[in-house]
Order: sequence, then C-alpha cells, then structure tokens
Amino acid sequence: MPGSIQSLERAAAVLRLLAGGERRLGLSDVASSLGLAKGTAHGILRTLQQEGFVEQEPVSGKYQLGAELLRLGNSYLDVHELRARALVWTDDLARSSGEAAYLGVLHQHGVLIVHHVFRPDDGRQVLEVGAMQPLHSTALGKVLSAFDPVAHNEVAEGELAALTDRTVTGTAEFESVLDLTRSRGWGSDLEETWVGVASVAAPVYDRRRMPVGAVGVTGAVERVCDPDGIQSRLVAAVRDCARAVSRDLGAGRF
Amino acid sequence: MPGSIQSLERAAAVLRLLAGGERRLGLSDVASSLGLAKGTAHGILRTLQQEGFVEQEPVSGKYQLGAELLRLGNSYLDVHELRARALVWTDDLARSSGEAAYLGVLHQHGVLIVHHVFRPDDGRQVLEVGAMQPLHSTALGKVLSAFDPVAHNEVAEGELAALTDRTVTGTAEFESVLDLTRSRGWGSDLEETWVGVASVAAPVYDRRRMPVGAVGVTGAVERVCDPDGIQSRLVAAVRDCARAVSRDLGAGRF
Repeated sequence: MPGSIQSLERAAAVLRLLAGGERRLGLSDVASSLGLAKGTAHGILRTLQQEGFVEQEPVSGKYQLGAELLRLGNSYLDVHELRARALVWTDDLARSSGEAAYLGVLHQHGVLIVHHVFRPDDGRQVLEVGAMQPLHSTALGKVLSAFDPVAHNEVAEGELAALTDRTVTGTAEFESVLDLTRSRGWGSDLEETWVGVASVAAPVYDRRRMPVGAVGVTGAVERVCDPDGIQSRLVAAVRDCARAVSRDLGAGRF
Repeated sequence: MPGSIQSLERAAAVLRLLAGGERRLGLSDVASSLGLAKGTAHGILRTLQQEGFVEQEPVSGKYQLGAELLRLGNSYLDVHELRARALVWTDDLARSSGEAAYLGVLHQHGVLIVHHVFRPDDGRQVLEVGAMQPLHSTALGKVLSAFDPVAHNEVAEGELAALTDRTVTGTAEFESVLDLTRSRGWGSDLEETWVGVASVAAPVYDRRRMPVGAVGVTGAVERVCDPDGIQSRLVAAVRDCARAVSRDLGAGRF
C-alpha cells in the first residue's frame, strides 16, 4: 500500500482553508495558516491556479476557490446514484407537503445537502445543494446519527453546540433522542437549529440495508407543526418518500 | 517562481478523468488512461480518497468523484461576486420573461453556468449550475466570444462542431456572427445548440469595464421567437438585466 502524498494533502488543506472563513487570502495568510514555507505555499497555489482549482483576484492578488471545483462538484452530483433515484420522489414530496424537500448524506462531520427541492410557492429561496448542516440538531442529522454508526461516531466526537435555546446539548439527553428516532423510525428538529424552523426526516437504505442518506422536509414551525409536534401528514409523506427511494435503490420492502 | 507540482497536476488529471465519460473507473483504467504506473495511480487515488475528493464503490472497488468536491463547489459559488450581485436581477428576469434565466462565465473551453433560475411554472426542471455549454453555439457563449478576447481565443482554437443543422460551423461565418453580436450588443441562439430551443444573452461588465460574464434566457423557440427572430421584449429584458448587474458590479452607466 503506498502512503499518502504530502503535496496532495497540503493542496487539499489549502482548498479547505479557502472554503472556510475569510475565503480570499493572500500568500502569506495561506502559508502561515497552514504552517508552510512561503515558497512551498506558492508552488501549491500556482499549480492549483493552473488547474483551475484556485483563482487570483487581479487587483488584490488574493487567492480564492476556482471554477473547476464547481464543474467537478456538478459531475459528482451526476454520478450520485442516491440523488438520481431520489429526484422524482423528492419532487413529489415537496409538492404533496407544500414544503422544501432535502436529501442529505453524511460527509465529514456533518450532513451534506445533495438535493434540494424548493417549496412550491413563489417565495424567493436559495439553493442549498452543497451546503453542510449539523448532525446533532437537524432532522436529517439526527436520522443519520441514529441509523449510521459512522455518523454516530462523528457526532459523539464533536461538541453538541447550542444553536438555539432548544438545541439538545447534553450527551445523555441526545442519546435518548437518538433512541426515540430509532424506535419511531424518523427524526425531527423543533427550532433546534434555526429559530422558527422545524423539520422531519427519515432514513434511506440501499440494497445492502445500509443507511445511505436521509430525506426530509423543512419549513416554518407554524406550518410544519400542530400542537402535538410535527404534523402526522408530513411524517407520513416523508417516510413514504424515504421508503420509495430505498426501494428504488434495491432495499427490500419494509 | 516555483515550478508546478507534478503530483498535483496528476491528481487534477485523475479528477478530470473521473468527471468525464465513464465516471466510475478501476485502478487499471485510471493508470492506463493517464499513462501512469499502477503504484503511482494508486497513491494518488488513495490520497484523493482520504481527502474526500474521490470515493470508492464498496462492491466493485471502482473510483468515482467524492462529496468534498460538491462542498467546495458550493463554497466557490458563495465567494463569487458576480453571482451574488446577479441573484436578484436574474430572479426578476425569469419572472418578467417567463423563461429560465442563466448566468455564465468563461471556464476553460466553454461557458460554465454559475446561476440558473427556473422558468416560473410548474414544469419539472433540472438545475444546471455547474454544467458547461459550448462557446460557439449558445447565446451566452457567443456573447463571451464576442466581447472577451480570452473567450475568443478559446473558440478560435477549438472546432465549431455541428450540434444541430443550424449550428454555424464555418470560421468566416462565425466571425460575422460575432461582429453582429458586438454591433447590436447581444447574442442569440436559434436552435443552434438544441433543436426547438432558442436563447438570447447580453454581456456583464465589471468596474474595469471588462466583460466578466453573460446573462440570458433560454426557452422553447415557439415562445422565445416571433416571425422576426427573438422577441424584442425578451431582448430588452435580458439587456436590462445585464446592465443592472454591471451597474451593481461598479461599471459606469452605459
């Protein structure tokens, strides 16, 4: 087995650095942030720029992410079997629920949104494909944490940050939320990530019965909830959608 | 000036390979396609996998693009000033025109779609952000080729492939199309890329009066055209939008 290649690891670190926080950085910032010699950082940036992964602002000379990443990210979506299978079903979910539908997968320490169907009304909405959501507070994240052991490890190693007054931040309490999620087969988020926003999600399985993602709907708490919590018609619609996608992926009926 | 780093160039070539054509490739395919020794290719794939740029299918062992590219592509969009400025204006353009609106920039040998507003009706539509369109046949591409010398070089070096019966494939004829585009200030595509589809686009300028992208609308030829060609109300709407975005980017009034 060959070892990993240092210059590639460093290039990935440069891209991650440019993807977070400041997003436009000079050579010295990049070098000092990553503990690299300036010449080393320059060589990496120059090659990344030549390949289109990084662009240099003409005026300030600062570096930022490049267009080739968008093209490759789009190609990733094209090859994504789960997403391809979910397109029609999540469209129907948004239509029947009247809310925005999301498909998320575990990526690093969070949920990566790989598909987003707008709420079927005329309101302005921003596409969230490619965005990350927290594992411990969102409905998608709780479902992944409850059913996927790798996701559970990720969330157990991280901090349960308080995003609103309602976020569950205690480890024991969070584990009982996951127990509930497993026993009823779906997860919810009642203003635990964003004030005024609630969501419900269910797991998607593949042909090996592995949990490969989660689908859900998200919307204003006034629409999504009734006095007893998430409206049961929405729970049913989300679970129907998750079952339909799982069936399309080859999971046995359940 | 440091030289470029070979292992990075090779890693970029692996990603480009996985983004085109087959999209799921075994180690031997990757190695032979790029003329690399198997051990070299394996080291690159392993490191790319560890960084999330590549994923390995559990069953077949084949490699495909990884989720980290989607996350980074999304971060690229976040930092994109042209796109940020264009969001509201392209929304209005889709609404007023009743057609899908697009914002494109030159990337490599084509037009990279960095924003796409769905046609405001209930029809099923697929998001094309991150997709590439040809420079020589689309309205966005002709505008970039007419106004941006770098794009003109790209299109002059490439082949003017016949995509439909109506694609302009002769060099002299294509140059006169660009002359017309420059003199009237907008470009069109009358079934030259997709049969039954027409589009119109106009250039966006930045504060240095450089052409940094193009906006346009695309739709069924029956809706977009009248017997004289592109409907003049659509030409006006697209040009208004391009001017508004340019103004927001700091270009002087024109």
